[in-house]
This record gives sequence, C-alpha cells and structure tokens, in this order.
Amino acid sequence: MRHFKIRNQLVEQFKCLEQQSEARIQLLQDLQEFFRRKAEIQLEYSRSLEKLAERFSSKIRGPRKEQHLLSSVNCWYLVLNQTRRESRDHATLNDIYINNVIVRLAQISEDVIRLFKKSKEIGIQMHEELVKVTNELYTVMKTYHMYHTESISAESKLKEAEKQEEKQFSKSGDLNVNLLRHEDRPQRRSSVRKIEKMKEKRQAKYSENKLKCTKARNDYLLNLTATNAVVAKYYIHDVSDMIDCCDLGYHASLARTLRTYLSAEYNLETSRHEGLDIIENAVDNLDPRSDKHKIMDMYNQVFCPPMRFEFLPHMGDEVCQVSAQQPVQTELLMRYHQLQSRLATLKIENEEVRKTLDATMQTLQDMLTVEDFDVSDAFQHSRSTESVKSVASESYMSKLNIAKRRANQQETEVFYFTMKSRSSVDPLIHGSQ
Amino acid sequence: MRHFKIRNQLVEQFKCLEQQSEARIQLLQDLQEFFRRKAEIQLEYSRSLEKLAERFSSKIRGPRKEQHLLSSVNCWYLVLNQTRRESRDHATLNDIYINNVIVRLAQISEDVIRLFKKSKEIGIQMHEELVKVTNELYTVMKTYHMYHTESISAESKLKEAEKQEEKQFSKSGDLNVNLLRHEDRPQRRSSVRKIEKMKEKRQAKYSENKLKCTKARNDYLLNLTATNAVVAKYYIHDVSDMIDCCDLGYHASLARTLRTYLSAEYNLETSRHEGLDIIENAVDNLDPRSDKHKIMDMYNQVFCPPMRFEFLPHMGDEVCQVSAQQPVQTELLMRYHQLQSRLATLKIENEEVRKTLDATMQTLQDMLTVEDFDVSDAFQHSRSTESVKSVASESYMSKLNIAKRRANQQETEVFYFTMKSRSSVDPLIHGSQ
Repeated sequence: MRHFKIRNQLVEQFKCLEQQSEARIQLLQDLQEFFRRKAEIQLEYSRSLEKLAERFSSKIRGPRKEQHLLSSVNCWYLVLNQTRRESRDHATLNDIYINNVIVRLAQISEDVIRLFKKSKEIGIQMHEELVKVTNELYTVMKTYHMYHTESISAESKLKEAEKQEEKQFSKSGDLNVNLLRHEDRPQRRSSVRKIEKMKEKRQAKYSENKLKCTKARNDYLLNLTATNAVVAKYYIHDVSDMIDCCDLGYHASLARTLRTYLSAEYNLETSRHEGLDIIENAVDNLDPRSDKHKIMDMYNQVFCPPMRFEFLPHMGDEVCQVSAQQPVQTELLMRYHQLQSRLATLKIENEEVRKTLDATMQTLQDMLTVEDFDVSDAFQHSRSTESVKSVASESYMSKLNIAKRRANQQETEVFYFTMKSRSSVDPLIHGSQ
Repeated sequence: MRHFKIRNQLVEQFKCLEQQSEARIQLLQDLQEFFRRKAEIQLEYSRSLEKLAERFSSKIRGPRKEQHLLSSVNCWYLVLNQTRRESRDHATLNDIYINNVIVRLAQISEDVIRLFKKSKEIGIQMHEELVKVTNELYTVMKTYHMYHTESISAESKLKEAEKQEEKQFSKSGDLNVNLLRHEDRPQRRSSVRKIEKMKEKRQAKYSENKLKCTKARNDYLLNLTATNAVVAKYYIHDVSDMIDCCDLGYHASLARTLRTYLSAEYNLETSRHEGLDIIENAVDNLDPRSDKHKIMDMYNQVFCPPMRFEFLPHMGDEVCQVSAQQPVQTELLMRYHQLQSRLATLKIENEEVRKTLDATMQTLQDMLTVEDFDVSDAFQHSRSTESVKSVASESYMSKLNIAKRRANQQETEVFYFTMKSRSSVDPLIHGSQ
C-alpha cells in the first residue's frame, strides 16, 4: 500500500537527517580535537623558538656591547628579534585556537544538537499530519467502495423486485382476460400489492445507497486531490524547510569560525612578513665601508695617525730647508733626476697594477654578489605529485658547483692579494737609497 | 720616542683586527648553531603537523566517502591539506637551513680566517717598511746631530788655532822691531810654521765636518718629509686597505646567506598564503542550499516524492470528476463557500506569519553573519613594550559577550521555530472537515 511506503520513507528521512547531524557533530569534534592538538604544536614551537632566541640573546647581553653598531651584527640581532616575534605570534595562535576557535566549534556542536531536536519536533508534527491525511484518504476510499458495493447490491435487489413485478404483471395479463369475465380474487390482489411495496422499498434503498455512494465518491475525489497536494507540498517544501531548520546558522557559524582561524593565520603571516622586511632592510644596509669606519672610531686611539715627525734643529738652524748650495748642489741634482726617472717608471707600473687590481676586484665582486639565494623552487607544490624537490640537488648549491665556485674565487683572491702586496709597499724614496 | 709609540700602535692594530676577525668567527659560529637548532625546530614542527594531518586523514579515508562533496566537509579537508602543506614547507626550511645556509656560513668562516691571515701578511710587510723608515729617520737624525756636534767642535778647535796664531803674530810684531835689528831666530820661525800648519789642518777638518753636517742635514730633512709621507699614507690609505682585505667579500657573502634565509622564509610565507587562499575560497563557497541538494541527491530514494495517489474507480466510473448534480449540489456549494472564506482568513494569517518569519530570519541572519572573526589586534607588536594582548580579554570573545549573544540568538531561534511550526501545518482542506 502506498501510504505504508510513505510512512517508511518518513522514518528513513529522520534517520538520514539524524545521520547528517551526527556527521556534523563528528566533524565539529574532529575540528576541535584538531585545533586542540594544533594549538599544542603552536605552543611547543613557540617555546622552542623562545628558548632558542633567549640562548643567543643572553650571550649578546654580555661584553662587547658596542659591536651591535656594526651592520653585520645588527642583522644577527634582527634575526633573533624575528625569532622572538615568531615565538610570540605562534603563542598568540595557540591562544586564539584555544580561546576562540575551539569555543566557537563547541557552540556550533550545541547548536546542531538543539536544532536537530527542534526540527525533529516540527518534522514529527508534519509527519503526523501526513499520516493522518493518507489514513483519511484510505478511509474515504474504503467508504466509497463500501457504498458502491451496497449500491450495486441494492440495484440488483431492485432489479429482482422489478423482475418479480413484471412476472406477476404478465401472469395478471393472462388473468386480465379471465378477470374481465370473472371477479378478482382477493388472494392475488394482495400478492401484487406486496410486490409493489417491496419494489418501492428497494427503490428507496437503492436511491439512498446511490446518494451515499455519490457523496462518498465526491469525498474520495476531493480527498485525493487534497492529499496529493499535501504530499507534494511536504516533499517539495516541507522536507526542504525541515533541513533548513536543521541547518539554521550552521554554515554561517562554521564560516565565521574558519574565518577566525584564517584571520589568525593571515595576521601571523603579515607580522612575519613585517619582521622579515626589517631584516631585509638591514641586509640591504650591510655596508663594509661604514663598518670599517665604525671600527676605526671605536678603536680611535689605535687608528688615529700620529703627530708628524718635526724637524729637530739646533740653535740657529730653525729654517727647515734643504741646503742646495755648492758643493752638495750637484749631488742633489743628480739624486733629483734619479728620483724623477724612478717616479716615472713607478707611475707606469702602478697604473698597470691598479688596472689589474680593479679588474680582479670586479671579478671578485661579481663572484661575491652573484644572486644565488633564490630558493623559491623548493616551495613549489605540484598538486598532482605532492612531492617536494630536495634543495641541494642539481641546483646552484650542489656540492660540485660549490667546490668549483670556491676554487675559482680563491684563485682570484690569491691573485688579488699578490697584486695588492706589490702595490701597497711604497718603494719611491726608500727604494732608491 | 715617537717611533716606539708607532710600533706599539701597529701591534695594537693587529690585535684589534684579530679581535674583529674573532668576533666575526664567533658571530658566524653563533649563526650556524642558531640555524642548526632552528632547523631542528622546523623539523619537529613539520613532523608534528604531518602526524596531526595523518591522524585525521586516515579517519577520512574510512567510510562515508561521499561526504566530501559537502561544502563544510570540503573546508575540513582543505584545512588538513594546508596542514600537510605547512608540514612540507617547514621540512623544506629545515633542508635549506642545513644544506644551504649553514654551508654558506661555514664557508664565510673559512674565508674570514684565510683573509685575516693574508691581510696580516701584507700588514706585516707594511709594518716592517714603516719601522724601517722610522728607524732610518732616527739614524739620519742622529747622524746629523753627530756631525753637527763634530762640526761645532772642529769649529771651536779651528778658532782656538786662529787665536794661537794671532797671539804668535802679535808676539812676532814686537819681535819684528827687534828682528830688523837682529837676526831671526830659527827657533821662533818653526813655531810659527807649526801653528799655521795646525790651523790649516783644523780648517780642513772643519770644512770636512761642515760638509758632512750639511749633507746629513739634507738627508735628515729629505727623510723627514718622506717618512711623514709614508706614515700619512699608511694611516690614511694602508690601514684602510688592510681592513678592506680582511673584509673582502664578508658583507656580500653574509648578505647572500641572509638573503637565502629570507628567500626561504618569504617563499614559505607565499606558499602558506596560497594554501590559506584556497581555504578562504572554500569558506566563501560554504553554501547550505547546495549542501541540502547534495544530501537530497545522495539519499535520493528517501527524499524523492512518491507517485501521486490515483483515483481507483469501479468499472464504468473512470471519469474522475466530482458529481455536482442535485441533490449533492447544494451541499457542495455550501462547502465551497466555507472553504473560500477559510482560505481568505488563512491567506491573511499566513501573510502575517510569513512577515514575522522573514523578519526573525533576518535578525537571525544578522546574528549569524556578524563579522566577529578579525583577530589582527592580537598580532600587533608594539616595539616599546613587546607585550601581546590576550585575545580573550575585553574583545568580542569575552565570556560575558559570548553568553549574551548566545542567549539572544537562542531566544530569537525559539521564536522562529514557534512561528515556523505554526506555518508548516496545512489546515486548509483537512481543518475544515
């Protein structure tokens, strides 16, 4: 019977909605557990970073305070600052997971349970209505069929009475001929009246049944339309409404919770980025020249040039001027010419050395400033394989490449130093002696 | 003596450069240790995240596979994906620290040691030259003073001889008178010659010393200028050059190493950001309507509307039409008018309920979609205090606020359900029976 099938479907619908609610509660529980454990991981990470930063910061708080003025040392301090910043940010993440995300998830769990209960109440109401309606339809259909059967039987009984009447009538037709001649027999007259009475009774019964049947049929037809309308309304609107009631706010609340998580993660990232920018700025400002001057300023007494050597004359010899009269004049002139030619040679030599030095320095600079620090390849996530390449393989950082580059660099460096040491000694005055 | 002071300064300069190199080696060692430990922390973090993701992923691979089609479950899967992605990225960070950053730092350490050694060699050469020059100056100064003293003494001896000669001369002037009269005494003539000879000798000695002194004085003066020039050159250029040689490539290599670190961190961030964007997109697509339809599709047999109830007529009664002839006509008409007036009333009532429902739903929607998920305040780093506010304090997530909001929300919800259950039952046909 169709209305039993509907009743089974209604039971299955509740089961299905209950399963969905259970799946949701499971999901929310998983999410809570996940964020609880992730919060723990954040805290562990935060503490490890804090300890790491502390270990090296305490070293710094020791002697040689002035060192932090140097651009290289400044970078190191900023790396430690960044570590502390990351530590604090991951602790904040832990805080947000525990005190915000998980709290929200627990509330959504409560909501899911409460809303399922309430929706089920409304659903039961709707189901009862539906069952009532289909039961009614069944009843009016039965009634119609019952009245129809009765109407058929009343009709056949009426027809039987009419047949009897007709039989009596044809008998009395034969009789009529006789009756015209003979007197009516009272026995026969009462029999005709009886049949007529029965026929009238059966006619009345038939008419009554026929009316009942028509009414029942109308009821059945009206109920049929109404029930089909109610069933259609239930399947098209009410089930959907019931699910809506179960869902009320679920997606919105889950979205807000996940947005809280995202907000935390994005903000962690922004903070991290700001910190990295500070370090990058310090790296941009790594400057050997200014560091050199700072060191020379720090150790001022060690690097300040001494006073000039002054002429220590005897009394009356104060005029600090070379005597160029005879007989030393010739000797001085000779020496002067020697120095001039030596100077000319040195100038040429020095110019050559300087050129070679500059070129070598340029080669070294090119080697030293090669842009070999981009590691973005290592962070490519191919969606298909989910594998990550090893950074050390095949790239700029491979062992062979490193060895080659370093050998090359040191060779150039040795050459540079050889040229430098040749140029740094000043053989002008003293070499000629 | 000034040149001893210079010698001390040169020793101090080497000490200072050695200290600077040692400070650098210490810094590089600290950085290596720091990155080694930071790499460990990355690996621990990566493994924890991996384990966490694995724990929940294995749960998912179980039954109810079709669930992932739901937008809410999809978010959960993407959160797990993001966790795996973070895990991989932090493992990559570990790889880069170990196989790139630390390797570079070790190389810079080697470079610092090697370059300090070489620079010291050049420096020693320069220092020897400087000491030689100042020693020479000292020597020529001494020579000048010695010759000057000798010249003075030769001068005074010459003057003495001249005086003696003069004395002899004046004596012989007295004698001359006598001599004209008397014959010269040979004794006296030899004495005069002796004095003259001595005077000549002393004159020669004086001239010789005077010339030596002049030469020494010239040497001294020339050396003085040259030495001052050499010292000035050393202090102005050579010391600076020596430090440059020590520094050669240090800042550039350190910059490249730190840029490798920064590149890794920035790329981690970019990858993280991409992953978060994927989740955000899924959160944007959280959609109760499509989830509802997916569930109804999944459980198609439970939610598909049943076949319409058909009219089950008797033979010859196939025309499924309400009979509206007398005597049921009057009754049907009466019932029709009843229904019409009831329908009109219900329409008004339903319209009222619908309006209230819509308004209540709007209130609920406003509550459910309030933008209370921004936690950026928690990531503000005030440079002065370095303290971070607790997220749960004073903000939207305070206990009091949560309780208030939830009470408010549930009250509205109850009202909504009451109205909903009133509207969901369809009393039109059946209520009038």
